[in-house]
Amino acid sequence: MTKGERRNRGSKASQRPDGPAWRVMMHDVIFESDTPGGWAFDVALLLTIICSIVVVALETLPGYTRGGLLYGLEWILTILFTIEYVARLVCARHPWRYAFSFWGVIDLLSILPTYAGVFFADSKAHSFVILRSIRLLRAFRVLKLWRMMDDADELSQAIWKARHKIIVFLIVVLVAVTVSGTLMYFIEHDLPMMLADDPDLVPPSKFSSIPQSMYWAIVTMTTVGYGDIVPQTTIGKFISATLILLGYSLIIVPSGFVTAELTSSTRTAADPDAPRCPRCTSDGHRKEAVYCDRCGERL
Amino acid sequence: MTKGERRNRGSKASQRPDGPAWRVMMHDVIFESDTPGGWAFDVALLLTIICSIVVVALETLPGYTRGGLLYGLEWILTILFTIEYVARLVCARHPWRYAFSFWGVIDLLSILPTYAGVFFADSKAHSFVILRSIRLLRAFRVLKLWRMMDDADELSQAIWKARHKIIVFLIVVLVAVTVSGTLMYFIEHDLPMMLADDPDLVPPSKFSSIPQSMYWAIVTMTTVGYGDIVPQTTIGKFISATLILLGYSLIIVPSGFVTAELTSSTRTAADPDAPRCPRCTSDGHRKEAVYCDRCGERL
Amino acid sequence: MTKGERRNRGSKASQRPDGPAWRVMMHDVIFESDTPGGWAFDVALLLTIICSIVVVALETLPGYTRGGLLYGLEWILTILFTIEYVARLVCARHPWRYAFSFWGVIDLLSILPTYAGVFFADSKAHSFVILRSIRLLRAFRVLKLWRMMDDADELSQAIWKARHKIIVFLIVVLVAVTVSGTLMYFIEHDLPMMLADDPDLVPPSKFSSIPQSMYWAIVTMTTVGYGDIVPQTTIGKFISATLILLGYSLIIVPSGFVTAELTSSTRTAADPDAPRCPRCTSDGHRKEAVYCDRCGERL
Amino acid sequence: MTKGERRNRGSKASQRPDGPAWRVMMHDVIFESDTPGGWAFDVALLLTIICSIVVVALETLPGYTRGGLLYGLEWILTILFTIEYVARLVCARHPWRYAFSFWGVIDLLSILPTYAGVFFADSKAHSFVILRSIRLLRAFRVLKLWRMMDDADELSQAIWKARHKIIVFLIVVLVAVTVSGTLMYFIEHDLPMMLADDPDLVPPSKFSSIPQSMYWAIVTMTTVGYGDIVPQTTIGKFISATLILLGYSLIIVPSGFVTAELTSSTRTAADPDAPRCPRCTSDGHRKEAVYCDRCGERL
Repeated sequence: MTKGERRNRGSKASQRPDGPAWRVMMHDVIFESDTPGGWAFDVALLLTIICSIVVVALETLPGYTRGGLLYGLEWILTILFTIEYVARLVCARHPWRYAFSFWGVIDLLSILPTYAGVFFADSKAHSFVILRSIRLLRAFRVLKLWRMMDDADELSQAIWKARHKIIVFLIVVLVAVTVSGTLMYFIEHDLPMMLADDPDLVPPSKFSSIPQSMYWAIVTMTTVGYGDIVPQTTIGKFISATLILLGYSLIIVPSGFVTAELTSSTRTAADPDAPRCPRCTSDGHRKEAVYCDRCGERL
Repeated sequence: MTKGERRNRGSKASQRPDGPAWRVMMHDVIFESDTPGGWAFDVALLLTIICSIVVVALETLPGYTRGGLLYGLEWILTILFTIEYVARLVCARHPWRYAFSFWGVIDLLSILPTYAGVFFADSKAHSFVILRSIRLLRAFRVLKLWRMMDDADELSQAIWKARHKIIVFLIVVLVAVTVSGTLMYFIEHDLPMMLADDPDLVPPSKFSSIPQSMYWAIVTMTTVGYGDIVPQTTIGKFISATLILLGYSLIIVPSGFVTAELTSSTRTAADPDAPRCPRCTSDGHRKEAVYCDRCGERL
Repeated sequence: MTKGERRNRGSKASQRPDGPAWRVMMHDVIFESDTPGGWAFDVALLLTIICSIVVVALETLPGYTRGGLLYGLEWILTILFTIEYVARLVCARHPWRYAFSFWGVIDLLSILPTYAGVFFADSKAHSFVILRSIRLLRAFRVLKLWRMMDDADELSQAIWKARHKIIVFLIVVLVAVTVSGTLMYFIEHDLPMMLADDPDLVPPSKFSSIPQSMYWAIVTMTTVGYGDIVPQTTIGKFISATLILLGYSLIIVPSGFVTAELTSSTRTAADPDAPRCPRCTSDGHRKEAVYCDRCGERL
Repeated sequence: MTKGERRNRGSKASQRPDGPAWRVMMHDVIFESDTPGGWAFDVALLLTIICSIVVVALETLPGYTRGGLLYGLEWILTILFTIEYVARLVCARHPWRYAFSFWGVIDLLSILPTYAGVFFADSKAHSFVILRSIRLLRAFRVLKLWRMMDDADELSQAIWKARHKIIVFLIVVLVAVTVSGTLMYFIEHDLPMMLADDPDLVPPSKFSSIPQSMYWAIVTMTTVGYGDIVPQTTIGKFISATLILLGYSLIIVPSGFVTAELTSSTRTAADPDAPRCPRCTSDGHRKEAVYCDRCGERL
């Protein structure tokens, strides 16, 4: 199935707008990608999005002032995205349905913040911070990239197929995190206090509360290991080393589970280069196969 | 096999309690989950458990005082769990067997600490700390989640199947950790002392003892890498970089082993969409299979 | 297919240079590795490269002075590599094509810096730093190792086969990094300012800009976790713990994907120990196979 | 093949010592593990080894003094290991061959340090440090555990099978580490000096030399991420984030490779529960198989 075929499946002829020819053509350019025009539009949009993400990121660096090069670029990009948004509204078969769809809302949210900036005075620091925070929403334009990836379908399906495994994995991790966090809170925070003559003299532990200990457990169990919270006592180090080993042994099982799921789903997937039986049209044969393994026809 | 079938397998009709109809019905609601009532009970219990975990965690944050909102919630949740515990005792076929079972003990331990708090005076700091530590036991209610996960069976089986691999993996890691820890202790702690003119002037190493070095080795080999203990000397950095590379190469083998085990077990597992033979009821065929691979019947 | 066969495939007889016998022989020694001479040349080159890498690395250690042992070694190695470069130019069938090929440029770049050093006076600190930086190019001689690895072919093919998966993986990571980075910048940098009475009194956050936050997100999502940038606020810790868990669940899917791709490609690869059919010379049978699965001949 | 059979394969009857019956029996107890006596000896040895490792580790903790409980335990364990060593020498068929075998040397090295301690006076600090370092050799007794693991065979075979992949993996990592290390050294150490007006005023970089940068690259690429060396400049952070992503994408390929290798080797391995054909004795059938897939015999 080529890229074009797959796209067409998603946007059947019935979704094409009625009306004059230019509207139909515009629709094909914007919503389809199997024509030269549609492909060029997609590439241009991709570059514009990447450019806008870079601008949003650079604006947060110290030294950014309103009115410079970045400010100009921001307006140019916003106007381009506005034209795109209006064009999509104009040529969509159901403009309202598009406007309230997930991508329609993302498209709108990515142009509003710049216009909103005009109506705010920069005199007060608070309103400036709020304004800039709203502007950050434009970074979510990056989600548009998703729409452009054909292979993302396959990945989404893989994640969707493995969703039960991922949920079980998350629950297992959460249970382990709760138990580990509570245990380490007891050992690093409560135990030294119990053993001390004067609890007030015990130096404060980094494991100051259970939520903090659970944050430590998540950071540790996923092997991120920042090192901002580490056990100080000998018993704490011993228990945490044990928890790390147990957690590591535990965590490779769900990882392997997901891999196994994907391996079995890949196995049944058709290889595009594999010979197809001319009689029964079954595929999935080995490349070197000579006879069809279903009907015995010579390939 | 549907969810209901699997549950019934675990709790056969013979395990249903004798006695009046309300007791049997109550048993079905509490111990089964394939009736609407049983399912609603499970969901309610799940929410209550999550709620109680959050309360336990928030109570350890600074600023918690007895008598506030959290304290009230704690009592409400404890009373709910008490009712559940009594109900389970009442409608279980063998109340004593339930009381001393793993889940029965967990159920009891999760309600006792709150009641115990009544008999402790908060006047002395030590008793307060001890009391609060007992209260932490309630966090282990989270283990009840296990009972609710159908997919957890599959994960448990996978871990059980891979247990030999996991044990070998743990032993390999322990051997590697002991050897690495001892080696690094020698290089970072003893070697600078040997080479120095006056051993007393050598600054203290972070690798202060073999247990400490083994803690470093575990944190490093599992790629957690806190950074609280790092080699300081050039030779120490060289050896530790070598150990990291060797450890990494070594550790992907058991991980791959577990994955391979799971892949092979997934392969033989029945795919729910796979065709089932109408004559011999064997399943596990490929989706595109035309004849049963056991008895030759046309599918 | 033996090592020699594979090599020959790449350098067919037509690529052998014309001219006197010594030129053809020299070509075989330098460009082939299936003769004793060619193999010895490869091993000698390998050792020289490793030696030169060690010299380049040691020269950057403090205490290196021009004129010592390392300086002498540098000149000896450079002269050896010059001889090799000239020899390759002389006996290549198309000297210019070699000179402008990837490996030809690498070969030239690895000898130039030492000669360039003669024409620079060390009087000024800047020119010294620039000179030394050019010298670092010699470290890229290590890339020559690639040419010597037969198994690297297999790895390159595996990476090439999995390239779409890797690109999708990188795009997914980049999207996740942009979204996470922006979110954490808002929560750790902007939110405390918004909530504070006087934004100027808020201590500076480590998440000082979006690029910095994206750096944090990459370091975290790949589980490297340096710990130089960590969330300070409670809400920041909560969000980052959630992002870590989501990121971890997400990241095992593409990893498993690559593994699945490789598993399926390994499956069809020929096992050297597997029986080969004497009639049709097809291989890839199971070890315990009795009949050829292509032509039915008894193995 | 049961545990006993496998053991016997390694120690054939011809390796049994000649001589009186007690010597043969003692040989069976010490070198075999398929008799009750042999099994008990193995378990006792295992516990003794673990105990001795714990003693070695605890002796390095501050507060250890010669003459205490640990010192006594050290002597008891050393005497037990001496008896074991002498017994092995006595009942081995070729005592000298055992004495110079790998395990024989390990056995000897694990008892010598304690005896050596008697001949050293503790008066001088240096000799004390040297003595203690020799004592650390006893920690390598843990390697004896290897001999006791039946499953370790399988793991060793898996590592042996995947050795080419692991070597390629290590070479790829070394090439990547050399290139990354040199690049980061240039960007973090040389570039700021080049751009500065006065190179002497540039604060010293953590990337002080190429070996140091390569240590950083190894720590980063294996996702350990201590955080003792982190990029300080903006361009350094950008490059290192790119290197992390590339390195991560690169590193999952060899990991997947090893897993794929193991998956394919597991697939052909015989399942002990699988039915064996009574006619042709081929195994490896699916559990639910009814007919032999080689000769068609009903199982």
